[in-house]
Amino acid sequence: MAPPENTGVSNAAQAPQPSRFDPKFTQHVLDTMGPNVEPRNRQVLSAFIRHLHDFSREVELTIDEWMAGVHFVNELGRVYAESNKTRNESHRISDILGLETLVDEIAHKIISDTGSDPTSSAILGPFWSPHAPFRENGGTIIQNPNPTGRVCLMHGIISDLVTGKPIPGAVFDIWQASSNGKYDFQDPDNQTPNNLRGKFRADENGKYWFYCYHPTAYSLPRDGPSHQLLQMMDRHPMRPAHIHIMVSWSLIVSRRPALEANVAPAQVTHPEYKGCTTQLYPKDDPWLSTDTVFAVKDDLVVDFKPLQGDDKAELELDYNVILAPKDYKGKVF
Amino acid sequence: MAPPENTGVSNAAQAPQPSRFDPKFTQHVLDTMGPNVEPRNRQVLSAFIRHLHDFSREVELTIDEWMAGVHFVNELGRVYAESNKTRNESHRISDILGLETLVDEIAHKIISDTGSDPTSSAILGPFWSPHAPFRENGGTIIQNPNPTGRVCLMHGIISDLVTGKPIPGAVFDIWQASSNGKYDFQDPDNQTPNNLRGKFRADENGKYWFYCYHPTAYSLPRDGPSHQLLQMMDRHPMRPAHIHIMVSWSLIVSRRPALEANVAPAQVTHPEYKGCTTQLYPKDDPWLSTDTVFAVKDDLVVDFKPLQGDDKAELELDYNVILAPKDYKGKVF
Repeated sequence: MAPPENTGVSNAAQAPQPSRFDPKFTQHVLDTMGPNVEPRNRQVLSAFIRHLHDFSREVELTIDEWMAGVHFVNELGRVYAESNKTRNESHRISDILGLETLVDEIAHKIISDTGSDPTSSAILGPFWSPHAPFRENGGTIIQNPNPTGRVCLMHGIISDLVTGKPIPGAVFDIWQASSNGKYDFQDPDNQTPNNLRGKFRADENGKYWFYCYHPTAYSLPRDGPSHQLLQMMDRHPMRPAHIHIMVSWSLIVSRRPALEANVAPAQVTHPEYKGCTTQLYPKDDPWLSTDTVFAVKDDLVVDFKPLQGDDKAELELDYNVILAPKDYKGKVF
Repeated sequence: MAPPENTGVSNAAQAPQPSRFDPKFTQHVLDTMGPNVEPRNRQVLSAFIRHLHDFSREVELTIDEWMAGVHFVNELGRVYAESNKTRNESHRISDILGLETLVDEIAHKIISDTGSDPTSSAILGPFWSPHAPFRENGGTIIQNPNPTGRVCLMHGIISDLVTGKPIPGAVFDIWQASSNGKYDFQDPDNQTPNNLRGKFRADENGKYWFYCYHPTAYSLPRDGPSHQLLQMMDRHPMRPAHIHIMVSWSLIVSRRPALEANVAPAQVTHPEYKGCTTQLYPKDDPWLSTDTVFAVKDDLVVDFKPLQGDDKAELELDYNVILAPKDYKGKVF
């Protein structure tokens, strides 16, 4: 057998602990992997097995607890299969354990060396749609008004982390639940497809502006395995009110629409940018510090202000987005 | 919120590592647990979340890898649901990752201080049945002979770890696959229920004896998620040939049958014993060192010898079992 690859696992996690259990067992399991394992798979699976074993030894996992875990995993997949793949409880469990937020941080963390920071990332969640239509700046994403919805004029500038200059033609994709806490796909009786969804293209000054709703807090489903786990952890199922946004600019995605949008070709000389998928939260939301999926970050907490002199909206949100160039590395660790 | 319970997690696993990621994130997730969590649940879930996060940071788990994990978990439960709960791939995954063997060790590990050791435990597996009938010593568990089966006279003494004395009335429960590698439930065309299963009661000298087959190696299923994972790990799906046994003696289980078996009441004065569920393996099996579920231990590897002078069998297996008294603690760590 080939020598084991360097797994990249930290020494801290591998440090032998005094134990009454066989100290060679975990290495024996790892050593059964053959020579033809992809190096990345070997690294990930080895670390997973080490942590699974260390966890089990640390808590002296009982047979009943292990079996409860096996049943729980089966239950997650049963719900997915029986819901015809519309209810992904495995995804939701990974969210309530903080895993999606953590992999989002791992994928997108940038430590800036420019004095300002790019807009923080937050999880995509299950409700983004690739089919949101482009709409004109000044338009609205509210296609099916709800009488309890509070209309907001949202606007801002999309700019470059390094130069501070605006990014004309950047795409600002927004989606949100209605004021009943439901997205279009969850609420076909009240909402037509693409209600509260839209893409806007920043103008020649990097500005975007449109009408949306002040967002509404909502609960994860109050049945099923993820709710059982929340109850076991004495946790609430609430997400704070939020607006999802995905802001991007790339040659491939943007050149043709940018030209169509009458941005002069000479302006299409920017570098490409790392896209930013994130969520914005009203600063007075009661669930900010205990968001059930842990997706709140300081720079994503925003202030909705009363708006005077606009018949269409009672609130205003001014939110600027900062994108890092695609090749920007920041501080290297 | 109440102060967090002591999680029992080792300092080694908690030692802070230099990281470019938010060092407070994991503690924040743990702190959302409320005051009304059962202490054991808090300990187990806290350790699980810490290890899940540490694993993800160590390997810098990507979004695609996380999503592949979510899909894999869903697939496990789908197979269970669609097989009407007859195919438990979640259980099998935990076996091929070594987890069932580890929880078995945690539950049953005894470090002896008597100079001899009790018989080692090994995993129960999915094929034990509570319905195996009692049979007479000298009888056979072979109800449906297979022409390729090699009949073996199995016998031995069941004795007490501390006193070395035999344990009359102890129950020796055996189950095994037929020589085609299938158990009765997997092979209804060739085997009647309880073929190759039986319970035997040790005589007044602690002896048991009966006929069975030399066991046959077999493969885990060569389709489904567990086989995909084995292939990703460049591992074979073979279990070494093995005989399952479960040996027990307790007042509750044994007093009445022991009396019925004409063991004199005066002999029923033993302490109760910790039961021993284990597996025995022929010493020449090629899969011993790489058993796909890691259930082989040195004292469970046995020598089947040619048998002369018995028309019913060509092989003999002499195997003694040592049980620890129920209140025996051994060396304490």
